[in-house]
Amino acid sequence: MKLHTYFRSSAAYRVRIALNLKGIAAEMLHVHLLRDGGQQFSAAYDTLNPQHLVPLLEDDGVVLPQSLAIIEYLDETHPLNSLLPTDPRGRARVRALSQSIACDIHPINNLRVLKYLSDKLDISAEQKNDWYRHWVALGLSGLERQLVRDGETGQFCHGDTPTMADCCLVPQLYNARRFECDLSPFPTLVAIAERCEALAAFAAARPERQADAQ
Amino acid sequence: MKLHTYFRSSAAYRVRIALNLKGIAAEMLHVHLLRDGGQQFSAAYDTLNPQHLVPLLEDDGVVLPQSLAIIEYLDETHPLNSLLPTDPRGRARVRALSQSIACDIHPINNLRVLKYLSDKLDISAEQKNDWYRHWVALGLSGLERQLVRDGETGQFCHGDTPTMADCCLVPQLYNARRFECDLSPFPTLVAIAERCEALAAFAAARPERQADAQ
Repeated sequence: MKLHTYFRSSAAYRVRIALNLKGIAAEMLHVHLLRDGGQQFSAAYDTLNPQHLVPLLEDDGVVLPQSLAIIEYLDETHPLNSLLPTDPRGRARVRALSQSIACDIHPINNLRVLKYLSDKLDISAEQKNDWYRHWVALGLSGLERQLVRDGETGQFCHGDTPTMADCCLVPQLYNARRFECDLSPFPTLVAIAERCEALAAFAAARPERQADAQ
Repeated sequence: MKLHTYFRSSAAYRVRIALNLKGIAAEMLHVHLLRDGGQQFSAAYDTLNPQHLVPLLEDDGVVLPQSLAIIEYLDETHPLNSLLPTDPRGRARVRALSQSIACDIHPINNLRVLKYLSDKLDISAEQKNDWYRHWVALGLSGLERQLVRDGETGQFCHGDTPTMADCCLVPQLYNARRFECDLSPFPTLVAIAERCEALAAFAAARPERQADAQ
């Protein structure tokens, strides 16, 4: 199994956590999004992933983009340490929490979007930071309230073992800190992420621990 | 079962298609995103969905946001007319195609993002249209090439029956036409969407066919 990854990609970080939690060994192939004009645009990578995004999983003929699709595929093909609950309601909740981050926070603040804002719309560094922090604060605010409200919330986003939702939460908070977002309004999210980061599976997936980190 | 929907929401449109394909009756509750300062911010809706987005499903105590999580929940709880393949590889591919739209095209062009660009960053109508068309063209371009490449592509995105991926594709192309995006580079996507729209389940879900359309 091979994972095309970039140390700083939040979406790749999610999959690295999932692989570690499930104890699956994968070869890491590094795609540097800023080097050589963006290695995601190379002819070799373009053939594998015309969407030019990381992560991408290769597994015995399967060539699979999209972090959440990859995590569910890993979970279905390697049942040990399941990252989704067994009941439809629980699975739905974990998917919705994951998508609240993966659809409604992260893509708006992705590298290519920030680049468009700077290069094409000529916004200032301050405006770019405001943009970033606005979408993080908005998304995390709804998520914090949902986790406080729901009885299913436990030591982790759903119950007392890590799920796909935690694989999404930790990279999102990591990025938020990188952009100096104020996380004080989100004590539940911060506490869950701290519990996650105390686990080796999460710690080993951190960007600065990757071979391509620089 | 109740679906909180807005006729023009692309994400709600996906779920309306899924309900129709599966033959599930649901009461439609209309949340007008522009009226009354945005009905998604009302106290009643805020209690149900602190994320302030549509769609939202209510089903026997389940309160579920996020269109893709809703579609998978409907599919798991109502197995007839499955919207996901039975094999893990097929399911992974359908999820990835769906997420290519739901994570990497739609959120960047969502109403609230366009509003931020106009209100806070003061961009022109032309710049806003360029933004919209840029992300649509980029995302659809990768998707077109992927569908042309993959042997699993059939009369629909995956094989010869509609799946969750088609539930995402049709609303995205509908929106693209609304913003006058050039779809001529995407003949495969356009042909699949045409086959979909010939089906009553897709036709009945169109924005202009909804009770709240105006």
